[in-house]
Amino acid sequence: MKENIFELIEDKKYGLVRKEIIKLNTVDIAEFIEELQKDQAVILFRLLPKDMSVEVFSNLENDTQEAIIRAITDKEIANIVNDLYFDDMIDFIEEMPASIVKKILKHSKEDERKLINQFLNYPADSAGSLMTIEYVGLKKEMTLKQAMELIKRVGIDKETIYTCYVMDSNRKLEGIVSLRKLVISDENKTVEEIMVTNPIKVYTHDDQEEIAKVFKKYDFIALPVVDKEDRLTGIITIDDVVDVIEQENTEDFHKMAAMEPTEENYLDTSVFTLAKRRIMWLMILMVSAMFTGSIINNFQDVLEKVVILASFMPMLMGTGGNAGSQSSTLVIRGMALEQIELSDVFKVIGKELRVSMLVGSGLALLNFIRMYYLQSVDIKIATTVCLTLIVVVVIAKLVGGTLPILARSLKLDPAIMASPFITTIVDAVSLFVYFSMASYFLGIG
Amino acid sequence: MKENIFELIEDKKYGLVRKEIIKLNTVDIAEFIEELQKDQAVILFRLLPKDMSVEVFSNLENDTQEAIIRAITDKEIANIVNDLYFDDMIDFIEEMPASIVKKILKHSKEDERKLINQFLNYPADSAGSLMTIEYVGLKKEMTLKQAMELIKRVGIDKETIYTCYVMDSNRKLEGIVSLRKLVISDENKTVEEIMVTNPIKVYTHDDQEEIAKVFKKYDFIALPVVDKEDRLTGIITIDDVVDVIEQENTEDFHKMAAMEPTEENYLDTSVFTLAKRRIMWLMILMVSAMFTGSIINNFQDVLEKVVILASFMPMLMGTGGNAGSQSSTLVIRGMALEQIELSDVFKVIGKELRVSMLVGSGLALLNFIRMYYLQSVDIKIATTVCLTLIVVVVIAKLVGGTLPILARSLKLDPAIMASPFITTIVDAVSLFVYFSMASYFLGIG
Repeated sequence: MKENIFELIEDKKYGLVRKEIIKLNTVDIAEFIEELQKDQAVILFRLLPKDMSVEVFSNLENDTQEAIIRAITDKEIANIVNDLYFDDMIDFIEEMPASIVKKILKHSKEDERKLINQFLNYPADSAGSLMTIEYVGLKKEMTLKQAMELIKRVGIDKETIYTCYVMDSNRKLEGIVSLRKLVISDENKTVEEIMVTNPIKVYTHDDQEEIAKVFKKYDFIALPVVDKEDRLTGIITIDDVVDVIEQENTEDFHKMAAMEPTEENYLDTSVFTLAKRRIMWLMILMVSAMFTGSIINNFQDVLEKVVILASFMPMLMGTGGNAGSQSSTLVIRGMALEQIELSDVFKVIGKELRVSMLVGSGLALLNFIRMYYLQSVDIKIATTVCLTLIVVVVIAKLVGGTLPILARSLKLDPAIMASPFITTIVDAVSLFVYFSMASYFLGIG
Repeated sequence: MKENIFELIEDKKYGLVRKEIIKLNTVDIAEFIEELQKDQAVILFRLLPKDMSVEVFSNLENDTQEAIIRAITDKEIANIVNDLYFDDMIDFIEEMPASIVKKILKHSKEDERKLINQFLNYPADSAGSLMTIEYVGLKKEMTLKQAMELIKRVGIDKETIYTCYVMDSNRKLEGIVSLRKLVISDENKTVEEIMVTNPIKVYTHDDQEEIAKVFKKYDFIALPVVDKEDRLTGIITIDDVVDVIEQENTEDFHKMAAMEPTEENYLDTSVFTLAKRRIMWLMILMVSAMFTGSIINNFQDVLEKVVILASFMPMLMGTGGNAGSQSSTLVIRGMALEQIELSDVFKVIGKELRVSMLVGSGLALLNFIRMYYLQSVDIKIATTVCLTLIVVVVIAKLVGGTLPILARSLKLDPAIMASPFITTIVDAVSLFVYFSMASYFLGIG
């Protein structure tokens, strides 16, 4: 089908193109337009019926949006600007160069321009930056029949009509009504009789991560946003929150790999920016690793006498690092999902202690069999390595399990206490334990 | 407020408890009940009005649900079983012991029992296991007025009424109608006139990860599920998909830390299960790390002559591992979000090559200054270490960037090519490069 449309465009059979393309979902149309050359993209965009074109527009990438705005008439721009949902409009304006923004603002009314400015000033990642203003507002005195008539009239321009918001004359939020309740109730009742009072709400400056948690907990499809005086300033819908959830997860993935987090698409990010985001943590960790090197220096006499000890270092450091990363990942994720609280620290220690003894002993046993029976390593050395392994796994898992909780209690992000950091600490601990044990068991130093 | 209710329960003032508790959201009531002793939990649960009690029940933990079912009368059980949404019922039955399941099935009708069995047989993580059957079904010949009357009548028992499904006499899905469109359109039109034909749908056996992608792409709040003959078997709502998204992210976090993934809450998992999920990968990685040890053995003569070389090993291995983990994390996440495709492999290589040369040179420079000027290390050794560092960072980032893509092209999960695996490979490469360079520059071996 797609191939077919491509051909029709090549042949300039635009009537047929239009007929084919409007059968598609607007998200798919946007995806299709992205695959075209910019001039063809503009042509195809202008073929769309007005109601579809706005939806398609809000799903396009910024550079395509820009190309279209540059190419179309002022009247067409006005159509788009008037019909875009307010949150999509703000997202769009934020990404456009000044010349385009000017062109757009020309088509908006005085009060709308004021509102746009207000919205552009909400902190990134706040409720204010996520919300939209296209909601249905009701009065509590209305009968359900009147409410329904209002919804019929204004519903087409609203981001959602499935939750309606009841306000007093000062826009103070008094309650919410789901369209479901409205539909199934007797139409002679008043809004007040069926509304939920004290609805769960968020504040304009609340962080998006907290908002995502509210949605996840209560299974809402929309949530009211109020200012400090409890006046309704906007609503947030679930589809935007799904994006927030993925964004927050991406941030955690990045932080846990010792990078400055970003929302940006990897392929669209410049080499310099990528390097900048990575080098800081690598430097910090590199300098810390030099400390580990100085431990080896302190035990140089041990190593000189039994040089074979060096060959077990990677295995001990690697296993310790991996064991610690497992624990820290479980705890970081558990805290992100609010399954592990600060007060659970002793439960975590107890669990990690027992798990690490089990796991450490298993690994040590396997290792001993391999070293002593298969590789004929000296029994003293094999014993040193295997006992070290148990101690290292236990320490690694305790460090990995508790540092994220410690970070949280210090109001730091637990995600920084992930694999790279834990590994660096555990490397130092491993080598110290290893050489201390070796000195003792082999009678050196 | 919570404290207040606790006191009222202690004082057995159940009338007042009821009055206070029904002001809360059902999710919060469930959370509150979880904090009580089991016998008090049952008492409080029985105080709830019938319509609330079912919603509260579906938000309770399995052990509390079980305690309640064991304590209440057959009539009360029947009420719950009849009013639970089908997907909640299936989730509940799956977790209950046989005696409870028997008790529950006693209260369901023959055809419902058949349906329950069918649903229990859908593979975990499939659309079938996520969907529910409480949707509004319409006929295309209906006028919108008739459709609205139907919705009014049956709406209260449906999981969602905001999207309605149009089927022919064989239950074949013909289209969907949003309640919004239904409300704002002329009531004399027919359903056929306003329905979206060829709606986007999923199949009963589709994987939940794919379903989450469809929701994210199209911003739906519900999605129809059909069987191979295109007959509607159920619907999936966005709230369940939000849980799926978090679950899939948790799985990725676990896999990327070299653990068997799980949905289970950390604190609720037994020590033995935790150990079992972790030891396999630790063993595989430990055995691989032994190979790294044998590289050191091969260069034993170099190490014996210049024992100080050992002290830079942790820094080189650590930095290489961290550099590789950064790249693999970016690529794994990029693929999970469908921002990086198989065909982008050369773009990734080009990017990582340039980033790694920048980052590697920066780190090497810092290192050289520290070693040569601050620590007065021999210039030949300092040069060896710093050149090795650049090579190691470049190789680490290329390996980290490409292995996840290779895994995907082999139909493996890219998430296994994360930090632990990359680190193990990079450790071996680092040491090989290091000792080879040392032999050459220091003229040993």
